[in-house]
Amino acid sequence: MLLSPRKHRRHSQGWRTVGRVFDLPLRSAMNAVCGRGRDAVTAAAARHGSAAAEADWRRLLERDDVQLVDICTPGDSHAEIAVAALRAGKHVLCEKPLANSVTAAETARARGRLAMVGFNYRRTPAVALARRMIRDGRIGTLRHVRASYLQDWLVDPEAPLTWRLRREQAGSGALGNLGAHLVDLAQYLAGERLAGVSAVTGTFVRERPRPTGGRGTVTVDDAALFTGRFPSGALASFETSRVAAGRKNALRSELNGAHGSLAFDLERLNELAFHDQTEPADAAGFRRILVTEPGHPYLEAWWPPGHGLGYEHTFVHQARDLVHAIAAGTEPAPSFAGGLQAQRVLTAVEDSAAKDCTYTSVPPS
Amino acid sequence: MLLSPRKHRRHSQGWRTVGRVFDLPLRSAMNAVCGRGRDAVTAAAARHGSAAAEADWRRLLERDDVQLVDICTPGDSHAEIAVAALRAGKHVLCEKPLANSVTAAETARARGRLAMVGFNYRRTPAVALARRMIRDGRIGTLRHVRASYLQDWLVDPEAPLTWRLRREQAGSGALGNLGAHLVDLAQYLAGERLAGVSAVTGTFVRERPRPTGGRGTVTVDDAALFTGRFPSGALASFETSRVAAGRKNALRSELNGAHGSLAFDLERLNELAFHDQTEPADAAGFRRILVTEPGHPYLEAWWPPGHGLGYEHTFVHQARDLVHAIAAGTEPAPSFAGGLQAQRVLTAVEDSAAKDCTYTSVPPS
Amino acid sequence: MLLSPRKHRRHSQGWRTVGRVFDLPLRSAMNAVCGRGRDAVTAAAARHGSAAAEADWRRLLERDDVQLVDICTPGDSHAEIAVAALRAGKHVLCEKPLANSVTAAETARARGRLAMVGFNYRRTPAVALARRMIRDGRIGTLRHVRASYLQDWLVDPEAPLTWRLRREQAGSGALGNLGAHLVDLAQYLAGERLAGVSAVTGTFVRERPRPTGGRGTVTVDDAALFTGRFPSGALASFETSRVAAGRKNALRSELNGAHGSLAFDLERLNELAFHDQTEPADAAGFRRILVTEPGHPYLEAWWPPGHGLGYEHTFVHQARDLVHAIAAGTEPAPSFAGGLQAQRVLTAVEDSAAKDCTYTSVPPS
Amino acid sequence: MLLSPRKHRRHSQGWRTVGRVFDLPLRSAMNAVCGRGRDAVTAAAARHGSAAAEADWRRLLERDDVQLVDICTPGDSHAEIAVAALRAGKHVLCEKPLANSVTAAETARARGRLAMVGFNYRRTPAVALARRMIRDGRIGTLRHVRASYLQDWLVDPEAPLTWRLRREQAGSGALGNLGAHLVDLAQYLAGERLAGVSAVTGTFVRERPRPTGGRGTVTVDDAALFTGRFPSGALASFETSRVAAGRKNALRSELNGAHGSLAFDLERLNELAFHDQTEPADAAGFRRILVTEPGHPYLEAWWPPGHGLGYEHTFVHQARDLVHAIAAGTEPAPSFAGGLQAQRVLTAVEDSAAKDCTYTSVPPS
Repeated sequence: MLLSPRKHRRHSQGWRTVGRVFDLPLRSAMNAVCGRGRDAVTAAAARHGSAAAEADWRRLLERDDVQLVDICTPGDSHAEIAVAALRAGKHVLCEKPLANSVTAAETARARGRLAMVGFNYRRTPAVALARRMIRDGRIGTLRHVRASYLQDWLVDPEAPLTWRLRREQAGSGALGNLGAHLVDLAQYLAGERLAGVSAVTGTFVRERPRPTGGRGTVTVDDAALFTGRFPSGALASFETSRVAAGRKNALRSELNGAHGSLAFDLERLNELAFHDQTEPADAAGFRRILVTEPGHPYLEAWWPPGHGLGYEHTFVHQARDLVHAIAAGTEPAPSFAGGLQAQRVLTAVEDSAAKDCTYTSVPPS
Repeated sequence: MLLSPRKHRRHSQGWRTVGRVFDLPLRSAMNAVCGRGRDAVTAAAARHGSAAAEADWRRLLERDDVQLVDICTPGDSHAEIAVAALRAGKHVLCEKPLANSVTAAETARARGRLAMVGFNYRRTPAVALARRMIRDGRIGTLRHVRASYLQDWLVDPEAPLTWRLRREQAGSGALGNLGAHLVDLAQYLAGERLAGVSAVTGTFVRERPRPTGGRGTVTVDDAALFTGRFPSGALASFETSRVAAGRKNALRSELNGAHGSLAFDLERLNELAFHDQTEPADAAGFRRILVTEPGHPYLEAWWPPGHGLGYEHTFVHQARDLVHAIAAGTEPAPSFAGGLQAQRVLTAVEDSAAKDCTYTSVPPS
Repeated sequence: MLLSPRKHRRHSQGWRTVGRVFDLPLRSAMNAVCGRGRDAVTAAAARHGSAAAEADWRRLLERDDVQLVDICTPGDSHAEIAVAALRAGKHVLCEKPLANSVTAAETARARGRLAMVGFNYRRTPAVALARRMIRDGRIGTLRHVRASYLQDWLVDPEAPLTWRLRREQAGSGALGNLGAHLVDLAQYLAGERLAGVSAVTGTFVRERPRPTGGRGTVTVDDAALFTGRFPSGALASFETSRVAAGRKNALRSELNGAHGSLAFDLERLNELAFHDQTEPADAAGFRRILVTEPGHPYLEAWWPPGHGLGYEHTFVHQARDLVHAIAAGTEPAPSFAGGLQAQRVLTAVEDSAAKDCTYTSVPPS
Repeated sequence: MLLSPRKHRRHSQGWRTVGRVFDLPLRSAMNAVCGRGRDAVTAAAARHGSAAAEADWRRLLERDDVQLVDICTPGDSHAEIAVAALRAGKHVLCEKPLANSVTAAETARARGRLAMVGFNYRRTPAVALARRMIRDGRIGTLRHVRASYLQDWLVDPEAPLTWRLRREQAGSGALGNLGAHLVDLAQYLAGERLAGVSAVTGTFVRERPRPTGGRGTVTVDDAALFTGRFPSGALASFETSRVAAGRKNALRSELNGAHGSLAFDLERLNELAFHDQTEPADAAGFRRILVTEPGHPYLEAWWPPGHGLGYEHTFVHQARDLVHAIAAGTEPAPSFAGGLQAQRVLTAVEDSAAKDCTYTSVPPS
């Protein structure tokens, strides 16, 4: 299993926990950790109880005790590693973006092994419950999706110019980092894919201090706003920003249908708001479902009602779902094809913003 | 004073109350009421304690005891009455839209008398406080405006095809009815005018029962989504709908600046949320200001802290501000020129939606 | 009609508005205003459009154009004026407390005219809706009432020693001022009267500056906490304070029954929270009813859904209910007998706190 | 380490995670699991990766590879096991109640080894932050503590008569199960111990179906309400219930001081509300601190801002604090003496309720 410094802690917490909490059809264990710098990797392997430490990801692919590679490297290496791992006969879990360019992502399509993109927020119980309720017709034909993902860590103009603020490494800014989740969630919840988008993006702080000294230019967006249409006619609005003062991890979505509405906020991830329009008007209203009941998605394995879960549990659930898919031999969701389609939507969003035009159709994947 | 059946009750409650609660530089009284149907108008005049009832608005303009005409008729008559009243030497308060077409609105420009457009939500104390805080630099340079106005009275597909759903009378649907408030509030709070817009609109229920029998076609939008740019570079997102199940009068706006943020929800109109980014991170967070303190806008005349106001008080405050403007001989805000500019933004929004293009500039007023 | 400076403004706003908004069986008008200081009363009468100003309340009772006396004087004069007004053949609306001592209150019992105590919060639409839902069995047999009324205007140790902080004039502190509302609401909502109480009270700032100079002793409570039992077995908890920093007018109550729960907060007075325990657990949760629908109590006369009311509307509704009771010749609620019973509960609370004992029964009224 | 079926999962998740996330001065590992039924224990040991399974807790005390015993058995066995473990030279972490009777608890006092009672909610970051802010004087001299812990799993009258509903095994009902946390938290946050209490308790469903057939009598409370006084003069109110419909795990507390207030709700455990009374009144209000910043207690080891933790993390933090105490040789908090004192408060509460009297002092521990 491949774990890079940036995101490995949440992934490894997911893998360490999943087998203790859920009854799995396969046994899971972290048999190897890979990263840059032998000492750091050895320390990480020791801390996480893993058997082996590797400094070159190619060595990982040669190990017989590795069946699944979990890729948490920076985005510009995703495609290369994923393709090589699949060719080596490994299953793959890859952090989004699947690739920094649409072209590269296409070559990553699966080779008979199972490949999943890490849109972990689908695995929040409240989001999974929302999907179930929509599929069960609880809000009727969808008319509106309203989604925003706001953070504020770039409000400070002296925050440094890391790789995340350079187009060549990060691809895009808030759009790819946060907006990708918005697109995935909206399509997952709606059960259909966006057919057209129109966007505007902005960069408010154009120069920042380089970690190495001096100042350099920010070449990605601080924020992106876009509207979209679904083939069914439903309308969608999206907004993402890393300069929304006071919003720390505010991934919010609201869906309005012909018979009701649902709303979610990641900063209160154990709750789902639901309005049932079929109730008598004098007793109707948005209710706050505490998504901690045994009948809620993933909750049968956890704590009593009202005892909430946290952010990292999305990674436990992601691991659970992938292990089940591998055991059953079925394609996990989102597959690489799904990840590629999300990436194409983001590319259309970028083009629309660059050209001040509305894209009335997104290229099919 | 001219009051039509639809909206007159909230305006007359405003006029009746303003002089009892505030110390005004001029005495205000409703000396005449005008509307269609002599009996109904006479009954309304009696109920509201007015001295006179008129069935033809032209007669009203001839009365010497009328100095101000308050126009609450359907939108397609606003321009004609306003122009005539101004020509007759009356001051005018006119409900938005100032006119159903930009061309008609232009002719309504003031003739030496004072003319105000009824964007009453500016007079919500929390909104006025937000404006004051922004002007005082409490949130710094503005980066984001996020505004939505959601209602749900058209969710029911059997809701009748009233004049509000016909383009020839209403001009547009949710866009003109609700979106106009969004544009006015965003520009009022930002202190600048939108420079470009990009929009998508939708109509989800295309046929509805006519009040007179049979079914007819809905010719206005149920919902409109648009993005905008301010000359300063701030980005804005707007969404309005009359089919957002469970949202009754949800006019919400959030503004993010370089030093803080503000947020407001008309369904909780006595509250303003404020985040101060300059506070130490470990004690910072959005605070809920209960806008009921003596130092808050308009509050010096009302109740003790925590004793909230209601929707109708926006009309009391609107009346107060207009009386002060008349006494001082200064132009009220928003003036007819301001109302016209808002109307032009809405026209650009409609055009953008119709043509799938982004308008990079809005014609100046 | 008798109106003293302190509370007259909210009462007069109620009387001025009620006939404009509601269809009443009788016509109501403020024909006379009475208060101390001839000039102030004359000014108030002029401002409120009343016909006459009186400086001695006894003169008011001699007027033929006065059928109802609305008493808003300080608490220690309530009993005397109310008794005299009833003897003079007037109907009476009297602010609570009905009297500062139980003995005095008993003599105020009605003499063939209709007498009502001003527990205006019963007339909040959300509270009236809660009562209706409880009566309709929506939450089943009541088990818990949880009520608190918190303000913070005495947090400042330099707030002056007004009459409200002196036992001889105010009777008690937070207990009588705020706690009286808690007891009335709890009994109104529960539909039964408290059978036993146990209390603790406290005064945190014992000396304050006198308005006339120097410092004097606070002789009433800053806060009172008490528990209670209803004959049905339901348990109740009460807390009131005027030193709860940040709570401005936080009158909250929650009721838990065998089939559901209801919760209310006066700082958000247009909302009622409702939980229906009979719903499937995976979709259940507290819903926020926006109490602004035409089918809600008092709302048929007001604005469209989502357009909230304010604090003063409780006085409009109180006036409406009293006029209907007078027209129908039925006893209004709460009657003087009801007001007296509430006063007896407060006396038992005071005794319990003074003697560190639980009162297992409250003397019947 | 001793882990019984009921609560072992949350404790073992805490022990498994603590060493991976925090830098600890000692290495921690679950070397042995003990419980009733050899097969079940063996399965649990395998699932949790422990080395050994024991069916008799006395065998555990003989093991050299066990330095700490974590007791999660039913309450009536706590004292016996804890005393024996301490005598055998083990450190002890014992779930509350320390014992079902004050007498038994006294004998459990520590014997030179470190002993901690498992009041895990102290380890919620928001609660620890509240404590830090109080100690730093952010809300000034404390005046009010308002605490309630409401659940609803006994609303259903057909919920079975388990050992938790029988006095001989559980000691008390909601009072001991939930109220113990209220007392611990209130004293922890206030930094002082309750000096007097007055209580009322109730049982609403007196007969329930036995798991073995037929019906039996509930011999513990469903709910307990009590007031308390601190030596400083601060007043406290407490309420706990297991029949509060719709409240799943609603542990709430609010503290009002001379300069500000703090409020917490376990159902939103990543948030702390704070009001600073020293701010200008027109910009003051309760702010929602998202307790996920690196500077917040325990957060340096976790995720980025806004990425919330869950219920189980309180057990990770409890394990961390205990390991640090053992490494440093300092008494952990709450110690057994602290647990005993909390138990004595509960006993006074029970006596007060039984005798309808106020206890003006709680026996010192």
